Amino acid sequence: MPILTIAVDCMGGDFGPSVTIPAIKTILSSRPNADISNDPVYFQLFGDQNVIEQHLLQHKLNGHKCLEIFPSKDDVLMTDKPSLALKKKKQSSMRLALESVRDGRANACVSAGNTGALMAISRYVLKMLPGIDRPAIISALPTNENGPVYLLDLGANVDCNEQRLAQFAIMGNELCKGLDGIQSPKVGLLNVGEEEIKGSERLRKAAELIKQLDGVNYCGFVEANHIFRGDYQVVVTDGFTGNSVLKASEGLSLFLLAKIKYAFQKNWWTRFIGLLAKPVMNFFKEEINPERYNGACLIGLRGIVIKSHGSANTNATVCAIEEAILQSKQKVPSKIRQRLEMANKKQVF
Amino acid sequence: MPILTIAVDCMGGDFGPSVTIPAIKTILSSRPNADISNDPVYFQLFGDQNVIEQHLLQHKLNGHKCLEIFPSKDDVLMTDKPSLALKKKKQSSMRLALESVRDGRANACVSAGNTGALMAISRYVLKMLPGIDRPAIISALPTNENGPVYLLDLGANVDCNEQRLAQFAIMGNELCKGLDGIQSPKVGLLNVGEEEIKGSERLRKAAELIKQLDGVNYCGFVEANHIFRGDYQVVVTDGFTGNSVLKASEGLSLFLLAKIKYAFQKNWWTRFIGLLAKPVMNFFKEEINPERYNGACLIGLRGIVIKSHGSANTNATVCAIEEAILQSKQKVPSKIRQRLEMANKKQVF
Repeated sequence: MPILTIAVDCMGGDFGPSVTIPAIKTILSSRPNADISNDPVYFQLFGDQNVIEQHLLQHKLNGHKCLEIFPSKDDVLMTDKPSLALKKKKQSSMRLALESVRDGRANACVSAGNTGALMAISRYVLKMLPGIDRPAIISALPTNENGPVYLLDLGANVDCNEQRLAQFAIMGNELCKGLDGIQSPKVGLLNVGEEEIKGSERLRKAAELIKQLDGVNYCGFVEANHIFRGDYQVVVTDGFTGNSVLKASEGLSLFLLAKIKYAFQKNWWTRFIGLLAKPVMNFFKEEINPERYNGACLIGLRGIVIKSHGSANTNATVCAIEEAILQSKQKVPSKIRQRLEMANKKQVF
Repeated sequence: MPILTIAVDCMGGDFGPSVTIPAIKTILSSRPNADISNDPVYFQLFGDQNVIEQHLLQHKLNGHKCLEIFPSKDDVLMTDKPSLALKKKKQSSMRLALESVRDGRANACVSAGNTGALMAISRYVLKMLPGIDRPAIISALPTNENGPVYLLDLGANVDCNEQRLAQFAIMGNELCKGLDGIQSPKVGLLNVGEEEIKGSERLRKAAELIKQLDGVNYCGFVEANHIFRGDYQVVVTDGFTGNSVLKASEGLSLFLLAKIKYAFQKNWWTRFIGLLAKPVMNFFKEEINPERYNGACLIGLRGIVIKSHGSANTNATVCAIEEAILQSKQKVPSKIRQRLEMANKKQVF
């Protein structure tokens, strides 16, 4: 394996190679001397050979020495059931890309395909880290402070006992340290109130477990209105609540943007002000642009798997691939593994 | 009891009588001939007699025939533990106001006091409707459509089994019908996806129970990004997730408003545009103003209890009291009781 290799499922998501290939071009262009620099990245392109070749030609990338096509014979569809994708689509671009990570030919896999299928196939192909049952989904959200906050789980584990929540704390902590270079991220556990007596027994037990973890700066219960304040760098919760918080935030953002638009459409004068304010509003939208936070990670696996949003455009896909590169450099799974072993030795779980 | 009587805990919340008395004045002013009109409302004012009299004098309400002071000897503090408030503060304005509802002297109670204490004392004094264990907290949220969406539970019941979730569906349905006059509100159950196979077993069981309820227009699982779209009028979830969705929405709103402000502060030109756009932004803020949605209801009790936000100002308090008036007119608890009895007869629970 060359120094850094990313396996890209080119066919996944709503736009397939028409966003994955331009995204890869952007990344290659930002590393003009990749093959001789200190920061070379190679891409394995999984998908329909003809289609990928067409897109490479169109973007003048054909024959690029940092790219290699790996033909697949099937596609995982967005509508496929995970169990069907796992059993029947053994030659899909998603499966082959994950196998490349498993076999040590690539450092990480990026896919915008069917989340359930990606979860199931990742778990089967890559296997879980010792002591972890299922991957969790983690992603960064913007905050009022400089850095983002990492929220997990975002929907992979709808029921979580206290052990699993404590494992999320370890995983979120190591990911945040690796990606953002923060020595000791503040880790919080989502609850209905900050006081230690609040919430379900499961949450209070989870708090006790997380307190015992070495190298985790546990800062107590956190209420959801504090997530976006940036007081914490990692917020742990179960997959149902995390998914609901994330999706409610997406829904509310759209609702508020529609309300602002409506306010500027009231009459000719407000429309004129709206025209003047357009650059300001564009700057605002760029500041909160979800594209910048594209690239959720399936964490807890023995390899790195980045899930790009199904509707991700080129810029968003660049962010997802850059995250795969960064996680590969930081060797996040092996760091999580070490921390899990320490917790197991201490019999925290 | 005169035709409609509201028991107001004048001392609760951050501002006590300095917001409750002006709010009552606003409501009385909007009903100038209350004593002879078809819409008379009487207020029982619970709290420190001297303090209330001072505020009445200040607002020229002393001796108003629609007002009566009921002196209390104690206050429930925001920091009091619910158990302490329940056991030790038997002469508090909160307790006496609730007892007035229990004894049939008032139709509803409004308090901005300590939520936990209000829950505990309401449950003890008013008792639950048959078959309900604990009150749920329900509130309206704005949507892109004309009407609001009612979300419950917002934090009273962190652990909910399928029976409790089905009871929430009944309660939310009757409240929405009563307050918004919607014949057949669309009721959804919050989940990580819309497909019937999604989510925990508990949610799938709850869906089966809700389907069996007469008079509930159950429309399936709903994802949190759809809450603010207005596709549903009632969204049911457990108290932990509902609380997290509500608080995350509050936090995100503040975050986005701060980002807009920042965008307008970039340089002298954007500040100038910001000045011009101020009326538009004020209109936008008014559109999403949380004051308009103040007044959560503790539902499932044998009486009407409206919880005003601790930091509610006069306008927000007016909304909470108006909600108490509307719920009293609609006799929401007795409608919920009927529906619960029908479900019990059908052995849904």
